[in-house]
Amino acid sequence: MAKDERMEKVVNLLERRGFIFASGQIYGSLAGFFDYGNYGTLLKRKIEQNWWNFFVGKRNDVAGIDGAIVSSQAIWNASGHLAEFSDPLIECKKCHTRFRADSLIEDELKISLEGASLDNINKLILENKLICQNCKGVLEIAKPFNLMFKTYVGASEDESATAYLRPETAQMIFTNFKQVQMSSRKKLPFGIAQIGKAFRNEISPRNFVFRCREFSQMEMEFFMHPEKLDDCQINEDELGLEINVLTAKMQENKEKESKTTFAILLNGKSIGTKWHAYWIIKAYEWFLGLGIRKENLRLRQHVKTELSHYSFETWDLEYNYPWGWKELSGIANRGDYDLKAHMISSKKDLTYFDDETKIKVLPMVIEPSFGLERAFLTVIIDAFEEKMEGDEKKTILHLNPNTAPNECAVFPLMKKDGMAQKAIEIFEMLRKNTACEYDEAGSIGKRYARQDEIGTPYCLTIDYDTLKDETITIRDRDSTKQKRIKIGDCQSTLTALLNGAEF
Amino acid sequence: MAKDERMEKVVNLLERRGFIFASGQIYGSLAGFFDYGNYGTLLKRKIEQNWWNFFVGKRNDVAGIDGAIVSSQAIWNASGHLAEFSDPLIECKKCHTRFRADSLIEDELKISLEGASLDNINKLILENKLICQNCKGVLEIAKPFNLMFKTYVGASEDESATAYLRPETAQMIFTNFKQVQMSSRKKLPFGIAQIGKAFRNEISPRNFVFRCREFSQMEMEFFMHPEKLDDCQINEDELGLEINVLTAKMQENKEKESKTTFAILLNGKSIGTKWHAYWIIKAYEWFLGLGIRKENLRLRQHVKTELSHYSFETWDLEYNYPWGWKELSGIANRGDYDLKAHMISSKKDLTYFDDETKIKVLPMVIEPSFGLERAFLTVIIDAFEEKMEGDEKKTILHLNPNTAPNECAVFPLMKKDGMAQKAIEIFEMLRKNTACEYDEAGSIGKRYARQDEIGTPYCLTIDYDTLKDETITIRDRDSTKQKRIKIGDCQSTLTALLNGAEF
Repeated sequence: MAKDERMEKVVNLLERRGFIFASGQIYGSLAGFFDYGNYGTLLKRKIEQNWWNFFVGKRNDVAGIDGAIVSSQAIWNASGHLAEFSDPLIECKKCHTRFRADSLIEDELKISLEGASLDNINKLILENKLICQNCKGVLEIAKPFNLMFKTYVGASEDESATAYLRPETAQMIFTNFKQVQMSSRKKLPFGIAQIGKAFRNEISPRNFVFRCREFSQMEMEFFMHPEKLDDCQINEDELGLEINVLTAKMQENKEKESKTTFAILLNGKSIGTKWHAYWIIKAYEWFLGLGIRKENLRLRQHVKTELSHYSFETWDLEYNYPWGWKELSGIANRGDYDLKAHMISSKKDLTYFDDETKIKVLPMVIEPSFGLERAFLTVIIDAFEEKMEGDEKKTILHLNPNTAPNECAVFPLMKKDGMAQKAIEIFEMLRKNTACEYDEAGSIGKRYARQDEIGTPYCLTIDYDTLKDETITIRDRDSTKQKRIKIGDCQSTLTALLNGAEF
Repeated sequence: MAKDERMEKVVNLLERRGFIFASGQIYGSLAGFFDYGNYGTLLKRKIEQNWWNFFVGKRNDVAGIDGAIVSSQAIWNASGHLAEFSDPLIECKKCHTRFRADSLIEDELKISLEGASLDNINKLILENKLICQNCKGVLEIAKPFNLMFKTYVGASEDESATAYLRPETAQMIFTNFKQVQMSSRKKLPFGIAQIGKAFRNEISPRNFVFRCREFSQMEMEFFMHPEKLDDCQINEDELGLEINVLTAKMQENKEKESKTTFAILLNGKSIGTKWHAYWIIKAYEWFLGLGIRKENLRLRQHVKTELSHYSFETWDLEYNYPWGWKELSGIANRGDYDLKAHMISSKKDLTYFDDETKIKVLPMVIEPSFGLERAFLTVIIDAFEEKMEGDEKKTILHLNPNTAPNECAVFPLMKKDGMAQKAIEIFEMLRKNTACEYDEAGSIGKRYARQDEIGTPYCLTIDYDTLKDETITIRDRDSTKQKRIKIGDCQSTLTALLNGAEF
């Protein structure tokens, strides 16, 4: 299947089955905004819960927060976002259409522009005589366009009332660092994590939910004693994990990515500190736990010119999307950039008092950052399969139980002779512990197909034999194999399968 | 304790222990915006999850969605919010300070103004010669001030780029009604539910998080066949539930609320339809499940003048706050107002095709609507107690396991002689199934006090006897009683207690 065609089919499936679709469709939508439907909401909630358990709930060293979206100028001034958080905007002199300049160049010249400067962008446009994609008019000089959405708080729309929708959740963690550290009584090293919406006024949102204007982030800032950045245990299994890697050096030398282990990356000092490696490993493990295939992931280091204004060192986990390798998640070393910036601007003490040495220190920070919509889309793309069954095209989502909206579905073969009643009984029993759907409409084949499409791992069918011997058919989505099990064993069998037992 | 003093103490506790506090404090905050800290985030997530399970997860007749916050003018034009969603704003001629006019009158005249018209407000101000609370200057005429936050989407700030932060989550449900109904294959009657942020540019946010500018809503729109509004089973237990009620009629007659049952309300036709009664009962049960005391709740019907522009009939569950009886949750009959409005504006067919009669119908809607921050604050206020223990003031939050951030805490009596090690072992065992905290700092008394303050129902202490006979002390927060249990029984005892067993 061509890559573009594959993406088209994914988007079609997500809209048709109500996973996620353009927001406010009945009015013609605002680009870059999406609404999750029923199955999408279930899947989204699963990813969120899974992330929270993995990065917060199951750990002793991470506190949670949930900060406000609308936030004052002072915060974004201090963080550098007011000055620095922009994309190059270019306007046509004739028709006044506006484009994101680097995307326009990438489209026209088929090159990658990660980290190009504004000067470079303008040079490329001039040298290549690039023109307006809309009317072929001449283009102005590209200028920085700030990506934050602005609004006004209170009853007057003046400068002092200006506020911004946060472009990242991270700053709410930095501004609250001291308050959370004190009230949660955590000691370094520890993390503060948050799940919530962020907003970026992208010039050209694209690739469905890959780059949206409104999205959810799952972020953690992990604070470390500045002299203990390597004070971290990583177990042997994790150090031995294999991953495709592309370091900054390899990119300079125009090499391709190659397989390595975290042990090798750490020994070769490719990754600057041990805690940074630790959180890259955790991010990688988390995605593998969502069922994303190793061969579609790689780890790429940012080259110097593309580092964010706050970053000392950044590694992206990239996914092999239909439109190329792109960032799935970034793990940045923000150093003490943010705490220092907020200390200076707010004139408040944001240092940490070290009980042992009795010295105040400014912690250093590693930030594993995840986009929920990107994780969502990637899980779906990775799980998507279309195949022919006889004359018919079938769509299967190979989701694992960590992400599947339904973990099982229950069908009566027919509605009559008490089969529906029995099926509902079993459904009501299972749904107490298992995300479960009941379906009695259409042929069994149609019902299997409907569940395959939304990634339900197991289907249970109640038939005439059930009424005789209390057994039902359980069907495995991936192999389409079926077997008979006793109703009494149904919950335990299902639980075992959902926890990874062989069918 | 005076009521104001009580609220001050609650706010102090919430800030001090990092539950929730003004957002961006280090810069001096924007009024009406709040950040949740560690314990607050845990409590908030519990309320959210509890609501989702109760209203969506455990039901077969409710689908979920998760819509965008930033939304187009077209939606808010159709919904009536652009024209109608406003509060009366009044400005001082001299110092230009702006006030919410009805609040100013309520403050000055000590009366309640629920549902007063703009004309009435201006009349009251003139008649009573009310002046500016800031400079005693003369006031202008009160005008409507629209409460929606405005922003611009895309690279130009013109009229066509205007968008709004949603002031309620409900409209994302109405605009997606057809899409969700088709893709989730639900049949009438069924609900669509959503949890998410909403924003209102309140002129004077007040009472801590009771009226904020950014808040989370948990809303459901329950769609019914227009000819089957009473087609609903309510069981005897629920019909017999007692509740304090104040109908519109009682308010006209200036009566006080009185205790009644839902059976009586339905028989007396006080509540218009059976489905409306059903969802009021469910909302009431949900709050009781959060541990809020019956005597602090009442049900009040909106009088005609205070009905929202979309409402046919509304009932509020009110709580007896330190500042009086106020809305905790509203259950409105929105009729077909919204679907009709969106059908007309979008020119899209939003009717439902009734399989049985083969006739298209426009569903009627009951909306149970909940503010998360209000539920959060109410749970805390209701659970708050301050008492003297000897010479010391002690604060206790009597939270139940549905809301407590920690379900238990584990302490070693002392760090030495292997007690800390044993305690960590038990902690690690318990935390797999129970929200649990480990604390080894300070005296046992201090540690109990710390947990009492954040509402932890049970504390476990490991002491010298533990090392001899494998027993530990379990302490009940509310009675402060203690008993010894075997380590082996520890999880089962705790599970039983958290599920309601007697201590």
